[in-house]
Amino acid sequence: MTRRITVLCGGVGAARFLRALLAVVDAGDICAVVNTGDDTVLHGLHIAPDLDTVTYTVGGAIDPERGWGLSNETWNAMDALGRYGSVRPSGSTAGGTWFGLGDRDLATHLYRTARLAEGATLTEVSGEIARAWGLGITLLPMSDDPAPTRVGVDPSIDPGPDGDGMIGFQEYFVRHRHGIETRSLDLGARRAQPTDAVITAITEAEVVLIAPSNPLVSIAPIRALPGVDAALAARRDTVAAISPLIGGAALKGPADRMMAEAGLRPDAIGVAEAYTSIARALVIDRVDAAAVDSIAAAGMEAVVTDTIMSTPEIAANLAAVTLRAARAAVG
Amino acid sequence: MTRRITVLCGGVGAARFLRALLAVVDAGDICAVVNTGDDTVLHGLHIAPDLDTVTYTVGGAIDPERGWGLSNETWNAMDALGRYGSVRPSGSTAGGTWFGLGDRDLATHLYRTARLAEGATLTEVSGEIARAWGLGITLLPMSDDPAPTRVGVDPSIDPGPDGDGMIGFQEYFVRHRHGIETRSLDLGARRAQPTDAVITAITEAEVVLIAPSNPLVSIAPIRALPGVDAALAARRDTVAAISPLIGGAALKGPADRMMAEAGLRPDAIGVAEAYTSIARALVIDRVDAAAVDSIAAAGMEAVVTDTIMSTPEIAANLAAVTLRAARAAVG
Repeated sequence: MTRRITVLCGGVGAARFLRALLAVVDAGDICAVVNTGDDTVLHGLHIAPDLDTVTYTVGGAIDPERGWGLSNETWNAMDALGRYGSVRPSGSTAGGTWFGLGDRDLATHLYRTARLAEGATLTEVSGEIARAWGLGITLLPMSDDPAPTRVGVDPSIDPGPDGDGMIGFQEYFVRHRHGIETRSLDLGARRAQPTDAVITAITEAEVVLIAPSNPLVSIAPIRALPGVDAALAARRDTVAAISPLIGGAALKGPADRMMAEAGLRPDAIGVAEAYTSIARALVIDRVDAAAVDSIAAAGMEAVVTDTIMSTPEIAANLAAVTLRAARAAVG
Repeated sequence: MTRRITVLCGGVGAARFLRALLAVVDAGDICAVVNTGDDTVLHGLHIAPDLDTVTYTVGGAIDPERGWGLSNETWNAMDALGRYGSVRPSGSTAGGTWFGLGDRDLATHLYRTARLAEGATLTEVSGEIARAWGLGITLLPMSDDPAPTRVGVDPSIDPGPDGDGMIGFQEYFVRHRHGIETRSLDLGARRAQPTDAVITAITEAEVVLIAPSNPLVSIAPIRALPGVDAALAARRDTVAAISPLIGGAALKGPADRMMAEAGLRPDAIGVAEAYTSIARALVIDRVDAAAVDSIAAAGMEAVVTDTIMSTPEIAANLAAVTLRAARAAVG
């Protein structure tokens, strides 16, 4: 059975939007298709940051200040891991503590890793984890294949494993605190396959929403999976996106800088140019109201509302407005 | 450079004996060769219980009550893992919490797993972990190969993965709390290789001591490695063992029952019969003084002293007596 509303998701912004959407539609109507380009293996554990951020947020367990990880978390394993940093040989990355894994959060990675080792797909495991947290929505990783996003940076800052400055997304995002210039992106999703469930969710839903996530590293990996962009384009009239850029800046994360570094306009108009082939409507913030005509010129209908989900009411309004924008062509 | 004293080790009993030995000889003179037949992979992590018990004990960080794991430990990861037990599909063992992994202890397994994934040998990683804990002794896993000990039990109690009742050692020891009958033992060590360092430690040390560990599941795996038993037999005159059985009972663990189930005498005489081909002297407790003649009949010189390491003085005496027994033939 296909859920009525499919949402393409990155991490924090998407998770908050899903929570907002739950205020206006039944959980059973929602299917989240989540980026796994950020996934990584650390200490032998399979880490899926965006899936977990969505799960913990919708499950009501996210740490509200950090926006990732669990509330009331402890960090004893990470503290203890610090002991080993001084004994690893040069060249080894074992025992690194730059990627914070809370003690309770570790349980999720332990379970995921064990299930994958048993031969379960990431889709199966993600469904089990979602059920454990009481999520009523369907949670789909974009792919069951590894699809790592790599970021090209100045090799003199970080040569990466091959010496060419291509580093893992989490190395860029967490280790370097997304504070260094990006020169290129390599989307492993191009060499992966979407699951059948993802293709069905995109083709058969009543509407598809693109969450306010980073277009280049959260949404682009989903689009890069063979067949996904064409499936979205084919149903463009009932696809609506929310601009993650407000007044030319990202609320969180490096979307603005990354877009500029990629030669795109780092504002709502740039988002429209990125999404115009796959979505009819773009929901933008009131501060960007002057961009409506430019967005129309880029081929998208701009819908203006408050997009900073600072209260439950504003968030619910954003969800309702976005849904209406996607349904406008349905009539 | 070969250390002067090589000690064949299981877990708790051996770790306490090593600590006792450190009271009478320099740490730099000691090489511990540790059983890895108990090692297992849980949640994707490489767990080496005997190596860690020795490391934490000699490092002064062991929990003194439990005898395993770290003192001042927290269990938040395991508590959180419990959430997933209810969502795993039937047949899956993911998310199991029967093997307790403390939060700080997890760091050791995360580091070990990451280093092994980088291609390091278990010997290298164990040395790094020992250094991180400030151990002055040399710590050698018996092998760099997987060498799992499996226990044959009643398949109607636990069929094991293949349905024939052959289960992993930790499943027997921890999950079933060594409370079920053992019908057979399969030592994976027979199909593994000892490291060169282990063979050198056994052949070139001034003396070899066999710690008060379970003869069947702690010492037998080391002996089962191709070449080890012959190397011990070749230098039998300077090998001394300590009986882990006192008055026909093990201080800890199932050694007494396992020996009876294997058709061996579950007492110091049975230990002598098991070790007579590889060790000249057997240190036994005063309560077993009457067994001296039977042990001599089995071909070993019995040395009687207090063997329950209930105080540092008694422990140091046991270490000194055992060393003297091993050196007796050196003169």
